Amino acid sequence: MIRVGIFGATGYTGLELLRFLSNHSKVKVTVVTSKQFAGKKISDLFPGFKNYEYLTLVSPDSETIISEADLFFTALPHQVSMDIVPKLLEEKKKVIDLSADFRLKDVSIYEAWYGEHKAKEIIPKAVYGLPEIYENEIKKTDLVANPGCYPTTAILALAPFLKENLIDIDSIIIDAKSGVSGAGRSPKLTTHFCEANEDMKAYNVCIHRHTPEIEQELSFIAGREVKVTFVPHLIPASRGMFTTIYAHLVESITTEDAYKLIKNFYLERYFIKVLVPPNVPQIIYVRGTNECHLGVKVNERAKKIVIMAAIDNLGKGASGQAIQNMNIMLNLPEETGLKIPPLFP
Amino acid sequence: MIRVGIFGATGYTGLELLRFLSNHSKVKVTVVTSKQFAGKKISDLFPGFKNYEYLTLVSPDSETIISEADLFFTALPHQVSMDIVPKLLEEKKKVIDLSADFRLKDVSIYEAWYGEHKAKEIIPKAVYGLPEIYENEIKKTDLVANPGCYPTTAILALAPFLKENLIDIDSIIIDAKSGVSGAGRSPKLTTHFCEANEDMKAYNVCIHRHTPEIEQELSFIAGREVKVTFVPHLIPASRGMFTTIYAHLVESITTEDAYKLIKNFYLERYFIKVLVPPNVPQIIYVRGTNECHLGVKVNERAKKIVIMAAIDNLGKGASGQAIQNMNIMLNLPEETGLKIPPLFP
Amino acid sequence: MIRVGIFGATGYTGLELLRFLSNHSKVKVTVVTSKQFAGKKISDLFPGFKNYEYLTLVSPDSETIISEADLFFTALPHQVSMDIVPKLLEEKKKVIDLSADFRLKDVSIYEAWYGEHKAKEIIPKAVYGLPEIYENEIKKTDLVANPGCYPTTAILALAPFLKENLIDIDSIIIDAKSGVSGAGRSPKLTTHFCEANEDMKAYNVCIHRHTPEIEQELSFIAGREVKVTFVPHLIPASRGMFTTIYAHLVESITTEDAYKLIKNFYLERYFIKVLVPPNVPQIIYVRGTNECHLGVKVNERAKKIVIMAAIDNLGKGASGQAIQNMNIMLNLPEETGLKIPPLFP
Amino acid sequence: MIRVGIFGATGYTGLELLRFLSNHSKVKVTVVTSKQFAGKKISDLFPGFKNYEYLTLVSPDSETIISEADLFFTALPHQVSMDIVPKLLEEKKKVIDLSADFRLKDVSIYEAWYGEHKAKEIIPKAVYGLPEIYENEIKKTDLVANPGCYPTTAILALAPFLKENLIDIDSIIIDAKSGVSGAGRSPKLTTHFCEANEDMKAYNVCIHRHTPEIEQELSFIAGREVKVTFVPHLIPASRGMFTTIYAHLVESITTEDAYKLIKNFYLERYFIKVLVPPNVPQIIYVRGTNECHLGVKVNERAKKIVIMAAIDNLGKGASGQAIQNMNIMLNLPEETGLKIPPLFP
Repeated sequence: MIRVGIFGATGYTGLELLRFLSNHSKVKVTVVTSKQFAGKKISDLFPGFKNYEYLTLVSPDSETIISEADLFFTALPHQVSMDIVPKLLEEKKKVIDLSADFRLKDVSIYEAWYGEHKAKEIIPKAVYGLPEIYENEIKKTDLVANPGCYPTTAILALAPFLKENLIDIDSIIIDAKSGVSGAGRSPKLTTHFCEANEDMKAYNVCIHRHTPEIEQELSFIAGREVKVTFVPHLIPASRGMFTTIYAHLVESITTEDAYKLIKNFYLERYFIKVLVPPNVPQIIYVRGTNECHLGVKVNERAKKIVIMAAIDNLGKGASGQAIQNMNIMLNLPEETGLKIPPLFP
Repeated sequence: MIRVGIFGATGYTGLELLRFLSNHSKVKVTVVTSKQFAGKKISDLFPGFKNYEYLTLVSPDSETIISEADLFFTALPHQVSMDIVPKLLEEKKKVIDLSADFRLKDVSIYEAWYGEHKAKEIIPKAVYGLPEIYENEIKKTDLVANPGCYPTTAILALAPFLKENLIDIDSIIIDAKSGVSGAGRSPKLTTHFCEANEDMKAYNVCIHRHTPEIEQELSFIAGREVKVTFVPHLIPASRGMFTTIYAHLVESITTEDAYKLIKNFYLERYFIKVLVPPNVPQIIYVRGTNECHLGVKVNERAKKIVIMAAIDNLGKGASGQAIQNMNIMLNLPEETGLKIPPLFP
Repeated sequence: MIRVGIFGATGYTGLELLRFLSNHSKVKVTVVTSKQFAGKKISDLFPGFKNYEYLTLVSPDSETIISEADLFFTALPHQVSMDIVPKLLEEKKKVIDLSADFRLKDVSIYEAWYGEHKAKEIIPKAVYGLPEIYENEIKKTDLVANPGCYPTTAILALAPFLKENLIDIDSIIIDAKSGVSGAGRSPKLTTHFCEANEDMKAYNVCIHRHTPEIEQELSFIAGREVKVTFVPHLIPASRGMFTTIYAHLVESITTEDAYKLIKNFYLERYFIKVLVPPNVPQIIYVRGTNECHLGVKVNERAKKIVIMAAIDNLGKGASGQAIQNMNIMLNLPEETGLKIPPLFP
Repeated sequence: MIRVGIFGATGYTGLELLRFLSNHSKVKVTVVTSKQFAGKKISDLFPGFKNYEYLTLVSPDSETIISEADLFFTALPHQVSMDIVPKLLEEKKKVIDLSADFRLKDVSIYEAWYGEHKAKEIIPKAVYGLPEIYENEIKKTDLVANPGCYPTTAILALAPFLKENLIDIDSIIIDAKSGVSGAGRSPKLTTHFCEANEDMKAYNVCIHRHTPEIEQELSFIAGREVKVTFVPHLIPASRGMFTTIYAHLVESITTEDAYKLIKNFYLERYFIKVLVPPNVPQIIYVRGTNECHLGVKVNERAKKIVIMAAIDNLGKGASGQAIQNMNIMLNLPEETGLKIPPLFP
């Protein structure tokens, strides 16, 4: 059994790692940290997590953690991960970082959006952990920068069309809708039940921090600089993300053409399901899974393409994808421990 | 007191008319119809509607209805309204029709999207009931075609920019999110609690029936033919609509410019609130009201404008707006009976 | 116009007072306080409250407040109200206190459940503000202690049966379910959307602070000491309360008898609706109103009675009832400004 | 691999069987039926169920079904199961029936609550499938009558106290709250999103069909006839059940005593978690699992005990428990395939 550690185990992404890993036959969680709950048992804090009755949370500052696992997930806020990841790499551990700290290749862009970077020298080692795009690189690295939830949907939806130069790269609109768990477990007015329930709103319109991440990856794929208009929204659901993407077509194609293009692009990918038009993705069918469902429609009258992506923001949008990355880093089949149907309804 | 009748009083828009009218000082509901519940009292079917204990539902086929009121709301499905509205007009009644039957000026477009039209001769008499655009015409007509909920948000958001020729009319994207009550009260699988709850999905992508209605009105305002890409979505909330609209700017303007433009455009309009950037509208602050809240942001990097509109789909999106139209037709202040704060939370 | 002031206007009960009062023809809100938001306008903080564009929040410590209104609502936490209410009474103002500070007649019980009482001498002046029981006393007092939400349902449901000595007073079980807004607007883990959504749980089982309030009032009605088993629960809804009450019958009566008894007991009461069995109350039909809907069923096999009560916890459970009390204190019809149908759906 | 068939695979309990079985290492689903969707693939109807891409739904009338599996789940409505179960038993198949058809031992009681019974001779063969009570009998039978969701909570909560004669059997009150999925997948007005959302209500007060089932089992355990007062409620959640049970204590015990009693009673039972007082169960921690969480509190002032049980109505309340029964019938560890943490949040 490979020994796995989780920094930040009591946030929503940390817990979701534990949930997925409880099904995994090749690894065992051996150490979990929490600043707030050090000394307590996971299974006491979260009844029902009885697979982990053996685990007591330790402080992230504890000296012995690093020796207790072979691979670590850092499910920490940005600016915090960068303090811990270098130490883990020094000790030859494999690391999957769920924060934003190692996603952006250009330090100046990172610093413009997030603040000072204290581990710049590590950035070039990190591989952007979107396995459907970077599987070969992930296999060889010790550090995966696990993608943000919004970028995961945007990149997976757009890659096939950018690769084929089918869309006007100046016309891309990304309208994304996320469940509330994306905002984390710390209580805030915006995540108060009575403020989020029965509500819907946009936030950080055109200035969300995932914008440079999306643009970096789309530019790599397109081979030229891509600028997008990205508007995230909050919906009254605990989990799930539905992203609707619009772009102007530079060639006339039909919905059927577009469907086939995506279908072929992801032909061998276990976690991508492309729906036959006019079917569209639904959050409820990916809830609790590591899947991304894609749908497409060409509006021929306006020469626009509409691509839709649904994921669970805690699954393919965070912890599920992190485990998919782990599997690839460990030379396991990528779907190990992740072959579970959605919780429906 | 002016006597008011409602055809289709037990659907969600019919009930919402009753709710708003219970606050109205100048009119009295004197007759209400229901095919399914004829013979029953409104206040027995819907406890809490005690202001209407005097009202017993009658069959829409009853002979005496027309003489019992001076003004009628027809809160009926499309294709049904067209059977009743001509008779009401013949008897010199004022009519506000909440169906789609009299919204489209071009019969051939109506028939392409909805089916055969059996009252074509009436169409030219109908005024499209968006008071912020057509107040003068509404004052003089006997037949108002009350707008659809999606068109209401799209037209109110885009009108100021189309009037000023600030946007590329081939670039308009309308990404709309609606609460479930928009689908009506008849039980269907898509409105089953367990199928809609915790879900989000697009539907009728680029082929929703409100598309020609949006295009007709935007074309009138722009003075040229406008084609849009319109994608409606369902969100897990009972009420409310949030529409995010994107367009390419043909001139460089700032967010502040855009805000001032909308603010001035709607300066005298009671029901339009324009939020100071970076504030954005929220459904929860319009719930139960006849208001439309607008927000705006220019993405200068991509030369795109983002306009956001929030309404209650049963309020400004249907019954609230119908009463606003009624007030105007009756030469009352448009806000009569509609000055109520949102139900928050 | 009578001038009304609200201490604590930006909490959920304060806002609900403003919402209801916006419909009121005889009073005008002239002063509103907020510690956190002093200096800001209500209508900027809560878009849609445009009826109150004239109101700027002031600090509760401001010297001039008292002279600016004739009647005050204190929508403050317990232990805070007791600092302000005495000053208001000294200046001959009428006061409706929404906290628990003046509800309990026995100071020692108050202090056992809530902490030290700093205005003991005021307690005897306070009238418990349940108009269906104490209307005559409310008419004559300057200080109303507005009831808690749970007690409102329990007392209204049980009063008819206690008056008639029909139930075993040692057998009373009160199983109450409340929407999340009852927990207030301050963010906490228990009110986080993701923790409350799709969840249900009991809390403060048999030790909730409303227990002594319920017991005091039931004892007054029964003429003997009543002890109850009271278990409150949280449901995933923003508003509403549904209370199911069980008791052993000391006489054999039928469901029909029980229905008639309640019906007659509340015959003249505008805000009480008794549903004809087997109909039962529903939260959705009282949402946004000041109504209490009651239902009843006798389980003859077990000689038990089941009484059900539904209210809006912010309406009849707090701010609606406070305004009903205000109306009575001002010799207005009790339903003034409160005749509004529910927000359905 | 043992071959498993499911009659009624496209209802909520059928799908939940498929979800749980996708994790099961010892059985394989080989045949699934659906009247409505025969000929379609499960994975097309329910995207995300890709583990079942090999399965095409067949009509329940198909001749070959019986030979295609060794063990069958009948996830059918009552009155329908009784047509199929006898044929399966004749062919020496093992059967777990999720309907009510074989739960009641007394045919006359069945017929009074459900209608005519057409397979009376089978009833004595059926074992009531509550493994924590009947494990030994389940091991030996070919027909398990899988318990109803409400009875599961009521029996598990009360059994320890009835066994020890600690409660007055005439005083039992069962106040149960269920998520909407318990009402099935067929669209009805009561399960319409807008009617169930933000609502709460009781239904079938004291006359719900699970009453005789609860009473039968409690009477077996108590050794005398037990009559209960049972009131089910609907809450605005897709899944989950929270049951609060009240009874008069015939002996004075403390909360601590009560806790220890339950804890010891279920000491060896994998799926029962007893929370240390004052902790209480929460639906959210059992969602998607086969667990039952129990909490307890003694109200010493009133000599009443309050026992709380939380389950997922589709898990321990239906399909999870059915698989637990299957495991026992097949001599597998009862938790096989069922060791999964809750979907939290």
